[in-house]
Amino acid sequence: MSKIRIGIVGYGNLGKGTELAIRQTPDTELASIFTRRDPSSLEALTEGVPVYSINNILEHKDDVDVLILCGGSATDLPVQGPELAENFNTIDSFDTHAKIPEYFAKVDAAAKKGGNVSIISVGWDPGMFSVNRLYGTCILPEGENYTFWGKGVSQGHSDAIRRIDGVVDARQYTIPVEKAVEAVRSGSNPQLTTRQKHTRECFVVAKESADKAKIEAEIKNMPDYFADYDTTVHFISEEELQRDHSGLPHGGFVIRSGKTGINKETSHVVEYSLKLGSNPEFTSSILVAYARAAVKLSREGAIGAKTVFDIAPAYLSPKSAEELRAEML
Amino acid sequence: MSKIRIGIVGYGNLGKGTELAIRQTPDTELASIFTRRDPSSLEALTEGVPVYSINNILEHKDDVDVLILCGGSATDLPVQGPELAENFNTIDSFDTHAKIPEYFAKVDAAAKKGGNVSIISVGWDPGMFSVNRLYGTCILPEGENYTFWGKGVSQGHSDAIRRIDGVVDARQYTIPVEKAVEAVRSGSNPQLTTRQKHTRECFVVAKESADKAKIEAEIKNMPDYFADYDTTVHFISEEELQRDHSGLPHGGFVIRSGKTGINKETSHVVEYSLKLGSNPEFTSSILVAYARAAVKLSREGAIGAKTVFDIAPAYLSPKSAEELRAEML
Repeated sequence: MSKIRIGIVGYGNLGKGTELAIRQTPDTELASIFTRRDPSSLEALTEGVPVYSINNILEHKDDVDVLILCGGSATDLPVQGPELAENFNTIDSFDTHAKIPEYFAKVDAAAKKGGNVSIISVGWDPGMFSVNRLYGTCILPEGENYTFWGKGVSQGHSDAIRRIDGVVDARQYTIPVEKAVEAVRSGSNPQLTTRQKHTRECFVVAKESADKAKIEAEIKNMPDYFADYDTTVHFISEEELQRDHSGLPHGGFVIRSGKTGINKETSHVVEYSLKLGSNPEFTSSILVAYARAAVKLSREGAIGAKTVFDIAPAYLSPKSAEELRAEML
Repeated sequence: MSKIRIGIVGYGNLGKGTELAIRQTPDTELASIFTRRDPSSLEALTEGVPVYSINNILEHKDDVDVLILCGGSATDLPVQGPELAENFNTIDSFDTHAKIPEYFAKVDAAAKKGGNVSIISVGWDPGMFSVNRLYGTCILPEGENYTFWGKGVSQGHSDAIRRIDGVVDARQYTIPVEKAVEAVRSGSNPQLTTRQKHTRECFVVAKESADKAKIEAEIKNMPDYFADYDTTVHFISEEELQRDHSGLPHGGFVIRSGKTGINKETSHVVEYSLKLGSNPEFTSSILVAYARAAVKLSREGAIGAKTVFDIAPAYLSPKSAEELRAEML
């Protein structure tokens, strides 16, 4: 079997993580990188991999088996996803939960038109967390799902702080409240408010002239992002931010707590938890596994948009069904 | 849509758990129970459900959409699995890991001959633990899988003790060694011996006349079952056994610990853990979810034997793909 040729669209944190993940999978290879920047300004880590302008991507249709779209959900993917799905098998990590049905419909129509497979919203949430919510709910239909995120850096919340006047840079950690996690793990199925589940801790570099009290108040009162949480703000120097907060660790838990028995007298707790040294490196490792699945499905004649719910676990593996049954069942 | 009609084959702990699980799923119904015992000696918990002799099972081919085989892997399933797969869609929890390839081949041939779908080795190990080993391995190809079982009752080990001369009854708990679990969770990828991973604790009711020291030595030196473990033996009364050890709790963890990054400098730990109030009630809840999947696949025209690796998560759910994307992704 020839290797699966992967093209990366967008060479930021996620694109770079995807390149690293491809290097760890002997059955895939990085065919090319597509960028909106001047291609001559970029050099792939992997020797000999060409970097092309995204404007010329259609010229390379025959050189890649699947594209991994590493752009953002706010503005990149809503445009790129449907456009590219018409011409390539694609994988993306579209994560605006509320807009998934609309995005799915557009990508599905494009993929069907082009005869391709597109797996959308791949990653850990949406993604592996979703799969675990689904498995847990199907196995224990009478119960509750709980999702906790962190401790980890939320890039969306960090960006929101950076947009405040007087802020030079910022890093925001989402932290699950230990007491709430323990209550859920006990099987007591507690009702928890937003504030009871997570706290937010912010490390902010402010301009020397800035009014720190004003910045702190602006953060803590920001609707949606911070107002519903207990938020702590620390002002630190740019050096401290670089030294202590340059990584992108993350993680979290999905817990399904359910009851069985004639009188619902038996408790069960199913927990899936992640402790990630690097959010983009883990996410891109998932993207590469699903890229393999997309190519296998496409070779079988499947078309259209899919999600992680539609992909049997065996499709993620380079091994045969026989090997998996013998070694891993 | 009419309800999925499920037949239960074998009405022991697992069969009774399956009946309870069906009661919690509005889209399924218990059609009938098949037993090797005298059918008039059994009464289903669910009013109006007929109990038939397994000898007459073929007369009821048109009354059930799928059979859940609740017999044991040692002697029941190797015979029943292939026989019934030729005439019904089936689900079983065949758990003799080493014999899975051989069993799969026989069930596959029978299911294909009869045009049915059979999902074998469903439960939590093999089953959900296998799925998590597979997902973890595909996402983090450079790493280690660790499986810990317990704290919980091992019925195989309890049975092994009961076969010792002078033993009236026994209950054996498998207990993961906390220090080993913590070492794995830290991401240090330790090499662990059998003895370092689990201990075994036995509660034994002996005949009054029995030589307890001899029984204890016989347990601790039993090859495969106990000799490779640190084993503790407690002699208790029959009343104590009934009072303190009548439940069948179980659980365990699958941990995938892997590295990413240009020099494998980034650690990730993925953990799936179960805390089960009742092993048979949880296992049978999984069986019912996969019974739904088997019927959906069969209605789509699929045939042959499958495992949990071959079943996309969405097939386990009574909800539509649209609902799942909107509510659970």
